[in-house]
Amino acid sequence: MNIPQSSNPRIVIIGGGFAGISLAKKLKNKNFQVVLLDKHNYHTFQPLLYQVATGGLEAGSIAYPIRKVIQEYNDFFFRLTSVKEIDTKNQKIISEIGELTYDYLVIASGSKTNYFGNKEIERNSMAMKTIPQSLNIRSLILENFEQAVLTKDLADRNSLINFVLVGGGPTGVELAGALAEMKRAILQKDYPDLDIAKMQINLIQSGDRILNTMSEKSSVAAEKFLLDLGVTIWKNVRVTNYDGRTITTNSDLTFETATVIWTAGVQGAKIAGLDANCLIEKVDRIRVNQYNQVKGYNNIFAIGDIASMETDLYPQGHPMMAQPALQQGDLLGENLVKLRNNEQMTAFLYKDKGSMATIGRNLAVVDLPNYHFNGIFAWFVWMFVHLFSLIGFKNKAVVFLNWVYNYIRFDREGRLIIRPYKKKSFTTFTSDEV
Amino acid sequence: MNIPQSSNPRIVIIGGGFAGISLAKKLKNKNFQVVLLDKHNYHTFQPLLYQVATGGLEAGSIAYPIRKVIQEYNDFFFRLTSVKEIDTKNQKIISEIGELTYDYLVIASGSKTNYFGNKEIERNSMAMKTIPQSLNIRSLILENFEQAVLTKDLADRNSLINFVLVGGGPTGVELAGALAEMKRAILQKDYPDLDIAKMQINLIQSGDRILNTMSEKSSVAAEKFLLDLGVTIWKNVRVTNYDGRTITTNSDLTFETATVIWTAGVQGAKIAGLDANCLIEKVDRIRVNQYNQVKGYNNIFAIGDIASMETDLYPQGHPMMAQPALQQGDLLGENLVKLRNNEQMTAFLYKDKGSMATIGRNLAVVDLPNYHFNGIFAWFVWMFVHLFSLIGFKNKAVVFLNWVYNYIRFDREGRLIIRPYKKKSFTTFTSDEV
Repeated sequence: MNIPQSSNPRIVIIGGGFAGISLAKKLKNKNFQVVLLDKHNYHTFQPLLYQVATGGLEAGSIAYPIRKVIQEYNDFFFRLTSVKEIDTKNQKIISEIGELTYDYLVIASGSKTNYFGNKEIERNSMAMKTIPQSLNIRSLILENFEQAVLTKDLADRNSLINFVLVGGGPTGVELAGALAEMKRAILQKDYPDLDIAKMQINLIQSGDRILNTMSEKSSVAAEKFLLDLGVTIWKNVRVTNYDGRTITTNSDLTFETATVIWTAGVQGAKIAGLDANCLIEKVDRIRVNQYNQVKGYNNIFAIGDIASMETDLYPQGHPMMAQPALQQGDLLGENLVKLRNNEQMTAFLYKDKGSMATIGRNLAVVDLPNYHFNGIFAWFVWMFVHLFSLIGFKNKAVVFLNWVYNYIRFDREGRLIIRPYKKKSFTTFTSDEV
Repeated sequence: MNIPQSSNPRIVIIGGGFAGISLAKKLKNKNFQVVLLDKHNYHTFQPLLYQVATGGLEAGSIAYPIRKVIQEYNDFFFRLTSVKEIDTKNQKIISEIGELTYDYLVIASGSKTNYFGNKEIERNSMAMKTIPQSLNIRSLILENFEQAVLTKDLADRNSLINFVLVGGGPTGVELAGALAEMKRAILQKDYPDLDIAKMQINLIQSGDRILNTMSEKSSVAAEKFLLDLGVTIWKNVRVTNYDGRTITTNSDLTFETATVIWTAGVQGAKIAGLDANCLIEKVDRIRVNQYNQVKGYNNIFAIGDIASMETDLYPQGHPMMAQPALQQGDLLGENLVKLRNNEQMTAFLYKDKGSMATIGRNLAVVDLPNYHFNGIFAWFVWMFVHLFSLIGFKNKAVVFLNWVYNYIRFDREGRLIIRPYKKKSFTTFTSDEV
C-alpha cells in the first residue's frame, strides 16, 4: 500500500462513516500513524440519502471528500480500497490493493442491507445504504414513469407506478413521505398523460407500528401524517418473497409492483478473519467491551453499526444509527491515546440525544429523552439538526438553498436520470403503433 | 409511443439541447401537437461540462428536467428515447420505443465527438459531450491519483498523473486551465505523499494557435494564461494514435499517459434515412436552406449543430455552438406558424454575439464582434453570461454559491468518485508489501 515507515505506532481504521471520521478527527496529530481505508473516496451523510433518491438533493451535497477532512493531519494516510480479510495472527489486513500491518486496528465498516437470506428479494429489490444505490432508486422511479406512459396494458402500468417500501423504520417512512409529496406536487404536472391518482405508495411493516424504535406517540403521529399524504400502511405483514413482479406475504395479501425498496433490515458489514466467538450471528455485529475492544483481542476495536456493546440498557447493543457511532469514535480517539500511555481507558456511556424522522413539509416527529413532539416545530428542529450535522460549509449552504427553493416552489429539480438503472426482472414495454 | 390523436398538426422534435428547447418554448400553445424526443430526460448546459469533470460543480446544477420546461404546455409530449431512423416516405420516425408519424419533423440531434475514424483512439480516450462522460472523466482523474499513490514504478506513476488534452478549442483550453488550478490548490494538499510537481497537463493543438475560432489577440492571451498556470502547449502537432498507454504523433514526439481527453473534433449526430444529397460527409451535418429546411424536403427541418446553412459569411455553416442553435430554434418556432398559415417564412440571419473562454480564476478571453478583451473583467463577463444562460432559478443560485465558495476557498469539493470509471487499457497497480 506504499505507506511509509514511521516511528509512531500505526492505527488502521476500516471505514470512513460517522464512526471512522469522528475517530480520525480525534487522532489528528496525536503521534500515531493513521491509515484510513474506505471503498469510497467520500464520507456519506446517510440520513439524507432518501432526498437524493427522490431528487430533492444532489449526491454531492451529502458527500464530503475524505482526503479533504485529513488534509492537514500529520502522518495520516487515506487509501481507497475494500478490506477482504483480517489476519489477526500476523497483525495485518488484506485488501484489494495489498496488505498492511497494524499496531491497532479499528473496524468501523458500518452496516449493509439485510435480506435475511432471501436471494430473490436481494436480486429484485432496491437497497438504499449508499449514494450509488440512492441514485439507482432515483433513476428507477423516473424510468418507471417514462415506461408507464408508453404502455396501454393497465395492469403493467399500475405495477410500474406502484411503489412498495418494505420496512417501517425511519428510512422507509421518510422515503414514503417524500414519494407522496412528489406524487402531489410534481408527477401530476410532469406526466399529464398518466392518471397519477393510480400511483400507489405502500409501506409494509412486519410489526404492529411504524417507527417502532421511537415513542408510541411519534409512531401514531407519523402514521397519521403518512395517511394524510396518501400512503397506504400495512402493519403486521411480513414479506416472504418478491420475484420482480409480485410480492408475496405471510398472508393472502400480494402486491403487483415493478419497484420494491427494501429497508426492512440491516446487518453488520463484517470482515473475515475474526474469531467466531466475537461475532453475533444473524446480525453480523462484533461483540465489544465497554471500551469498544473486540472480545478476545487487545489491539482490535470496533465502533459504530458493526459494534455491539451489550449493556443493561441496551442488551442487544446500541441502535445502529449516527449518534452511537459518533460518540464511540470520539471516545475511542481519547482511549487509544490513554492505552498507549498505559492509562486507564474510559468506559463508553451512550448519551441518547433522541431520535427524529421527517415525513413531509411541516411534518416531522421528534423524540427527546423526556419529551416527544411533532408537527411544524419538530420539522424545523429536524432541518436544523440535519443541516448543522453536515460536514462542510458549502454542503450546508447548498442543502439549505435547495430546501428553501423546494419548500417555496413545491419542487425537486433533481429528477434527472443521469445514469440509467436497468432493472432486469421487469418487461420493457414498447408499443409500436404509429 | 402512445401519443393521443389531435386535431393539431404534429411536430416531432428530435433532441432537447439548446436548439430543441428554444424551439419548444416558441411552440408553446401555438395549436400544434408537439412531441419532443431526447435520450436523456434533462437538458444539458454543455458549456459548463468541464466544471463537472473537474469537481467544481455537481451534475445536477447544469441539468434541467425537460418535463419541467414543458409542464404547462398544451398538447405537448416528451418521450425518453433515441431515434434510430427517419422514414421520409411514410413521414414517420423509428425509435427504440416504437414509431411515430409526423406532419413536420425537426432534427435537433446536435453533435458528437469526432475521432476521424480512429477506433483505437475512440476506445482508449475520454470524450466530454454529455454529463455521464464528464462524470467519467472526474472519476478517472481521481482514480489515477489514488493509483499513483500505490505504485513504486516511477514511469507508471508519471503516466498516471500525466493528463493529455487533444484539441485546443474552448473545451480543451477550459479543461486544461481547470486541471492546472486543481493541481495547485487541491491535489498538492490532498496527496501529500505524491510529488505533485510531476503532474503534467499537456494541451495538443494541430493548428498553429489555440482557440483558433477566436481572435488572434484572444489566442495569444489564452496561451499566456495557460503557460502561467503550468500547462504545456504543443502546437502544430497532430495525434496519430493512442493505444491506452502511448500517444504517437505526426512527428517523433510521443506521450506516455493513462489519460487522454479528446476534444479535437465534433461531427453531427446524424440519423439514418435522409437522402444522401443533403448530408455533408466527414462532418455529418445536414444541408439546410435559409429557413433551416433540409434540402429536398418541405416538412423536415434541421437546427443547431447538426444543421449546416452555407452562407457567404459562413461557407461551411455556422459554428457548432450554443448561439446559432438558440437563434435557429427561436426563428423556426415562428416560421412553423407562418408555414402553416401559408405566410412567407423569415430567412435566418445569425447575430454573432461573440465568443469567450475562461482559463482560470480572474482569467478569461472575450471576443465581441468589434472588441476583444481579456483578464479579470473578461472573467466577470464570462461568469455573468454563463450564470444567466442557465435554465432555472435554483441552478443559477447553486452555481453562483459554488463559484463564490470555490473562489474564496480555492476549492472544488466535488472531487467525489461516485461511480467508478473502469479504464480497461491501463494496468491496475497493486503493491503487496506490508
